[in-house]
Amino acid sequence: MGWGDLGVFGEPNKETPNLDQMAADGMLFPDFYSANPLCSPSRAALLSGRLPIRNGFYSDNAHARNAYTPQDIVGGIPDEEILLPELLKKAGYINKIVGKWHLGHRAQYHPLKHGFDEWFGAPNCHFGPYDDKTTPNIPVYRNAEMAGRYYEDFKIEKNGESNLTQMYLQEALTFLQSQHSKDQPFFLYWAVDATHDPLYASKPFLGTSRRGLYGDVVRELDYTIGKILSTLISMGVANNTLVFFSSDNGAATYSKEAGGSNGPFLCGKETTFEGGMREPSIAWWPGHIKPRQVSHQVGSLMDLYTTLAELAGVDIPTDRQIDGISLVNTLLTNTEKERPLFYYRGNQLMAVRIGPYKAHLWTWTNSIEEFNKGVNFCPGEEIPGVTTHNQTDHSSQPLLFNINKDPGEKYPIRSTTAEYKQVIQNIMPVIKEHLSNLKPGKPQLNFCDPAVMNWAPPGCDKNGNRCLKAPPSNLKKCVWDH
Amino acid sequence: MGWGDLGVFGEPNKETPNLDQMAADGMLFPDFYSANPLCSPSRAALLSGRLPIRNGFYSDNAHARNAYTPQDIVGGIPDEEILLPELLKKAGYINKIVGKWHLGHRAQYHPLKHGFDEWFGAPNCHFGPYDDKTTPNIPVYRNAEMAGRYYEDFKIEKNGESNLTQMYLQEALTFLQSQHSKDQPFFLYWAVDATHDPLYASKPFLGTSRRGLYGDVVRELDYTIGKILSTLISMGVANNTLVFFSSDNGAATYSKEAGGSNGPFLCGKETTFEGGMREPSIAWWPGHIKPRQVSHQVGSLMDLYTTLAELAGVDIPTDRQIDGISLVNTLLTNTEKERPLFYYRGNQLMAVRIGPYKAHLWTWTNSIEEFNKGVNFCPGEEIPGVTTHNQTDHSSQPLLFNINKDPGEKYPIRSTTAEYKQVIQNIMPVIKEHLSNLKPGKPQLNFCDPAVMNWAPPGCDKNGNRCLKAPPSNLKKCVWDH
Ligand SMILES: [Ca+2]
Ligand SMILES: [Ca+2]
Repeated sequence: MGWGDLGVFGEPNKETPNLDQMAADGMLFPDFYSANPLCSPSRAALLSGRLPIRNGFYSDNAHARNAYTPQDIVGGIPDEEILLPELLKKAGYINKIVGKWHLGHRAQYHPLKHGFDEWFGAPNCHFGPYDDKTTPNIPVYRNAEMAGRYYEDFKIEKNGESNLTQMYLQEALTFLQSQHSKDQPFFLYWAVDATHDPLYASKPFLGTSRRGLYGDVVRELDYTIGKILSTLISMGVANNTLVFFSSDNGAATYSKEAGGSNGPFLCGKETTFEGGMREPSIAWWPGHIKPRQVSHQVGSLMDLYTTLAELAGVDIPTDRQIDGISLVNTLLTNTEKERPLFYYRGNQLMAVRIGPYKAHLWTWTNSIEEFNKGVNFCPGEEIPGVTTHNQTDHSSQPLLFNINKDPGEKYPIRSTTAEYKQVIQNIMPVIKEHLSNLKPGKPQLNFCDPAVMNWAPPGCDKNGNRCLKAPPSNLKKCVWDH
Repeated sequence: MGWGDLGVFGEPNKETPNLDQMAADGMLFPDFYSANPLCSPSRAALLSGRLPIRNGFYSDNAHARNAYTPQDIVGGIPDEEILLPELLKKAGYINKIVGKWHLGHRAQYHPLKHGFDEWFGAPNCHFGPYDDKTTPNIPVYRNAEMAGRYYEDFKIEKNGESNLTQMYLQEALTFLQSQHSKDQPFFLYWAVDATHDPLYASKPFLGTSRRGLYGDVVRELDYTIGKILSTLISMGVANNTLVFFSSDNGAATYSKEAGGSNGPFLCGKETTFEGGMREPSIAWWPGHIKPRQVSHQVGSLMDLYTTLAELAGVDIPTDRQIDGISLVNTLLTNTEKERPLFYYRGNQLMAVRIGPYKAHLWTWTNSIEEFNKGVNFCPGEEIPGVTTHNQTDHSSQPLLFNINKDPGEKYPIRSTTAEYKQVIQNIMPVIKEHLSNLKPGKPQLNFCDPAVMNWAPPGCDKNGNRCLKAPPSNLKKCVWDH
């Protein structure tokens, strides 16, 4: 989902009344970012509080490539990472994930092995349908075992009809009510993925948006958020529950009208331009966060790790670099902390934001070969020297923008100006310090093997044998196109 | 000012709390348009309720060129046009214009000759400073006579400092209070122009925005709107006063960061893409317009003519085509009327919108010669076959977009699709009917003459002789670059 997909962030059709109301009752974060322009690394960073380069959710088998967790990925979230639910468990929280995990689908990487108590959802994206011969359909799990497979047991029709979001909503509401009745603290990671291609929405929402199927999907998500918030209110626990809404990457502009909107920001998913990583983010906590707040805190999904740990009263690990900062004061008193924001693509630090300034050390959209095949990460946008189709190294003289004045990254500040010189003088030591202290984790996304696909997920042998036979191992470096 | 310049329309710095509140207390119009991508014709259309092609605010001395009212323009608003204040006068309204007139600066064209009772402001843009030898500085009028000149008596400093907006605010407030004390109905046309290049703001606002000088200006306008609304409330006449906020054209994207934002829309001022004509529009009328309304009515500044006439209880002229429609029901009951919207550039009908569909009959940004000199109406944007540098005739097979799905006009609907064929089949007769019934007014913007400039405005001989000697007449066709 993109920054520009909510009414409150300027989507012209204004079809998100519940999210807009959530913002009106809480705090809007226009300067909030994912930790990566891509789903898997972004989610791994959210849950570990650490950049993908540290937690291993990257590849170094090609430079600056966007790697994720397709079905044949060998790696996943390392045990050594201390995930947010593992932290919260120490404070007595029950942790549930509903929806897409994306931190590795092999049995050792599942959510219940990494701090979650409950899971309803899938390890991978809902791509498909597949033939179950060369590629298996993705399993949907109920806790540690598969409950069925997408397209077979959990339908997603060709026209986009699916009741999955409603199922995920029901899972959330049931969990909330159950936790409430037990008076037990909880962490719900509600990771729905209906805005991810192939888009889906349930029948009552199909055809109801002014924006087509993508808009139908957003309308359904908006509806579900409204239901979750009203349930918290009606249970009387709203004052005791922090709800944070965001997305794992910018709108997939390469999908054209079906990819969503990044508003005035440049390009989208897969890129380290603002459209790739600036996220529509809202915090809601009645009685603690005042209504109608706007925070220009430069925030990151990784901050949720640190913030939620602090609110739960658990210490964050001190034996490793945590990239998230605590937003507790921001939420409660609307103060801002200056902090550098690092934009990575794979193993490459592409850009850094400090205050209103963003310095690009490298620029890249995608290769001219891929572009010529019709894959365009920046449709309709072309900024000479900025939206480059070569991986372009600017590290000796970064491309500098004031993204408050120039959110579209259209007007580089000239390198001859005093402003440029002063800003770069401030930014360069921050970059140097970051890189010199950086200890990259072991890359988890280098190797692929068809044998590791979801052929025989745990529990496949029950309720009629749904296990499929894996092909022989064929371990090789994954190919990352961009 | 652009659609994307207000927080409520997605400006990321969220610096317009008063306008955002005005929207929260009233009705937001995300689908509202100026009548032209340029100031003078747009304002002539607002006040006459008629397209510029009818009221004469166009040129036919070159095809599809943007003409306006520079100092050497010979023409102006024809007497035969029945302007909104002329209508309202019949219902006992006192009419005041504060700010930029732009409907002709020669004495016969002044506001007090066309229905206004009071004027404080200038006939032209605040360009300058000039030398008063080859070009006179623009006069500022108090009613029928000049009160001084820009840069001489009404300062605009090189750094953008000027208290003009505060003067215009004070004029507005004094007028409101005076009308209130007389219990006399009024029409205030508060036509401030601080967002027009050269930008200006008063000292308390300079340097206060995250967006630079342009943002300072917007912040000051936002502040002044807040003052006007709170004055109406404190006088107890808010329930009796409809306030409408809009702009005369899209953000001037050719001025880069200093030109404002059109949010997700394509290009800007001077063009008939959405960025050129979609305007940030809000209606406010406590007790009549319910709070938190959003109307997707396709609206036009020309509708204010018809709407205000209806609310004032005066009939609109029946001896001529009026292009505005009444929005009274829209305001009071949030209903929508389907209506075609015509996008003109000079004498050329460029595009038509009906419902979500926009058909381009012609496309043009500016000439490649001008573009190569650095004038870019669509910076960072380039859509092959759409943002053309040749005047491109698509009238036999219009370029068609669904602008609800695709606000950036990036993805033309393919002409081979059933959707295209059906939509074009509906649109073509509307275009045909419009053109066959069209009686263009006599073009007012064809001729220029240095002798008609503001050398000796009415009243220049008083308070020390401020009259300048006009050069000999040199009547010639105006040159319109784009
Ligand atoms: Ca662990
Ligand atoms: Ca008249």
